[in-house]
Amino acid sequence: MAKQVSGGGAAVAATAGPAARFDERLGTAVRRANSLVCVGLDPDPARFPDHLHDDPRAIVRFNAAIVEATHDLVCAYKPNLGFYAAHGLAGLEALVETRRLVPADVPVILDCKVGDMGNTAGAYARGYFDAWGFDAVTANPYLGEDSLAPFLAYPDRGVIVLCKTSNSGSGDLQDVVVRDGEVPDGGVPDSEPLYLALARRAQAWAARYPATVGLVVGATYPAALAAVRARCPDLPILLPGVGAQGGDLEAAVRAGLDGRGEGLLVSSSRSITYAGSGPDFAARAREATQRLRDAINAVRAAAGRESGPRAAM
Amino acid sequence: MAKQVSGGGAAVAATAGPAARFDERLGTAVRRANSLVCVGLDPDPARFPDHLHDDPRAIVRFNAAIVEATHDLVCAYKPNLGFYAAHGLAGLEALVETRRLVPADVPVILDCKVGDMGNTAGAYARGYFDAWGFDAVTANPYLGEDSLAPFLAYPDRGVIVLCKTSNSGSGDLQDVVVRDGEVPDGGVPDSEPLYLALARRAQAWAARYPATVGLVVGATYPAALAAVRARCPDLPILLPGVGAQGGDLEAAVRAGLDGRGEGLLVSSSRSITYAGSGPDFAARAREATQRLRDAINAVRAAAGRESGPRAAM
Repeated sequence: MAKQVSGGGAAVAATAGPAARFDERLGTAVRRANSLVCVGLDPDPARFPDHLHDDPRAIVRFNAAIVEATHDLVCAYKPNLGFYAAHGLAGLEALVETRRLVPADVPVILDCKVGDMGNTAGAYARGYFDAWGFDAVTANPYLGEDSLAPFLAYPDRGVIVLCKTSNSGSGDLQDVVVRDGEVPDGGVPDSEPLYLALARRAQAWAARYPATVGLVVGATYPAALAAVRARCPDLPILLPGVGAQGGDLEAAVRAGLDGRGEGLLVSSSRSITYAGSGPDFAARAREATQRLRDAINAVRAAAGRESGPRAAM
Repeated sequence: MAKQVSGGGAAVAATAGPAARFDERLGTAVRRANSLVCVGLDPDPARFPDHLHDDPRAIVRFNAAIVEATHDLVCAYKPNLGFYAAHGLAGLEALVETRRLVPADVPVILDCKVGDMGNTAGAYARGYFDAWGFDAVTANPYLGEDSLAPFLAYPDRGVIVLCKTSNSGSGDLQDVVVRDGEVPDGGVPDSEPLYLALARRAQAWAARYPATVGLVVGATYPAALAAVRARCPDLPILLPGVGAQGGDLEAAVRAGLDGRGEGLLVSSSRSITYAGSGPDFAARAREATQRLRDAINAVRAAAGRESGPRAAM
C-alpha cells in the first residue's frame, strides 16, 4: 500500500485546496490517514456516557470528543441529518456546530438523501453547501437528473447518489428488473436491476457535470457492489452497513475497491461512536476506528498483491 | 357538489378530533372549505413585498398573512422544507413557527420527500411528527417499504409517497419499464412503468399500516394520473404542477378525482403566494386561491354530472 499512498498523494497534493474537487480532497485525506474509514456521526443521546446526560450541549460535546479522538484515522465524517432533525432546532444547531468543529482537511458528507424538484433542489443546495458548508451530500435519484442538477453544478462538492442501499427492504424498488431499451448510453444487456440502470446514469452524470459523483452501495450486498464497480470503475462508493448492520467487511472491500485500491468510503457509525459507554468513550472510539482501518487496509494490501497489474493503472 | 359536501362532512365530523386519521381530518377540511386547494408555503424573500424586505421575521410574517387570508378556502397547507433549510437555522425556526400559526383544523403537510433507513427514518418521524407536529410528510420510496415503516406506524398521520413527480426529468427512473413478475400482489400486466409498480405497492401499504397512505402525481402527466387513480381508487393524491409549472388543471382534476369527487390535494405555491407583490399581497393571494378553488369545483361539478352513478358510491 505504501507505494499507492505516496504516489497518489503527491499527485493530488499539488491541486488540493479550498476549491479543489471533492474527489481530490477526499483522496488527499485517504492518503494522509492511510484510511478508507468514514465515521458516521449519528448522535443518540440515550447512548451517551452518563456525564453528558444532563448537558444541554451534549450532542456537540460528544461529537467534538469523537472527532478529536479520530480525525487522524479517517478520510471523512458523515453526520446523518435525521439524527439531528429528531431534536428539532436545537439538534440542527448541533449539526451546524458539528460541521464547524471538523478540521478543514477532512471532508464532511451530509447524509441527507436529498431529492427534490428544480427550484427546491437549488434551495437545498444553497442551504447544505453554501450556508452550512458541507463538502458533499447523499442524494436520492428517484426524481431524476434534473432534481440533482443544482447540486451537480458545484465543482468543489460531491453528490453521492443512492444506488443499492444496505437495508433489508432495499430490493423493493432497487432490484426491480428493468427491460431492455429503457436505459440510455449504449451497451445495454436485455435486462438488469434498477440499481444498475441507475449506476450507468451516474457514470454519465459524472462525465457531464462539474461536481464529483459518487454512489451509495450497501456492504450487505457484495455481489451488487461488484456489479456496480464493474460499471463505474472510477466513482467513489460510500459503503454503509459494515458495523451494526453486519455486512461482511472483507467481501465488500474486495468488491468495491477501485483500480488504485481506493475509491471506497467505508462508513461506520454506532460500532465506533458507541464502542465504549463510559467516560473513556472517545478512546474506545479511537481504538474501534484503528481496528476498522487496519482490517480494511489488510484487505487492500491482499487485494493489491493479488492483482499486481491493477496497482499500476 | 352540495350533496357530497354535507353528506360526507357529517359522516366524518363524528370521528374527527386530535387523534382522527389523517384522511378523515383532510376530508373534514375539504368539506368545510369546499376546496381541494392545498397552498404551498415556499418562501422566497426576494419576491416578498417591499415592506417586508428588511424584516428579520419576514418569512413568518409573510406566511402568517397568507394563512390568515386563505385558511377558510383551503384543505391543507404544504411548506417545502427546502425553502426553509435554504436559510439555515433561522429558516427552520420560521418553519416551526409557520406550522404553529395554521389553525388546528387545517392539516399541514411537510414536503420533505423523506427517505432513509430504519433507525434514521424513526429519528425523522419523531422530529417531523412528534417534535414539529406536522400532520403528514411527503416520502421518497427508493429505499423501500422498511424505510417508510416508521412513518406508516402513526395512525393519525399521513405518508404521501412520491409516485410520478411533476418535473420534466421525472421519467429518468419513474418511467423505466419494469418486467413481468417483479411486482407482487397479483394481477400484473406483462410490463409497466416503475411509477405504477410503486402505486400498487402503496395500495398494499395502505391496507397493512395504520397511517394514511397517499401518492404524489404531477398534474403535468394527466395520463399517468389516470392510470394511478385506476390502480388506487381510494388513496389521496397530492397534485403539484398546476400553477407555475403549467399543468392542465381540468385534465388533471378529471383524471385524479376519486369516486366521491374528492381524493385530490391540488397544490399551488407561487401562483398563489406571489399573485401580488405589493402591500396587498395577501388579498391577491386570497383572490388567486378563490379562483383556483372555483375552477377545480367547476370540474368536480361537471365530472359529477357526467358520472351520476359514481356520486352514489
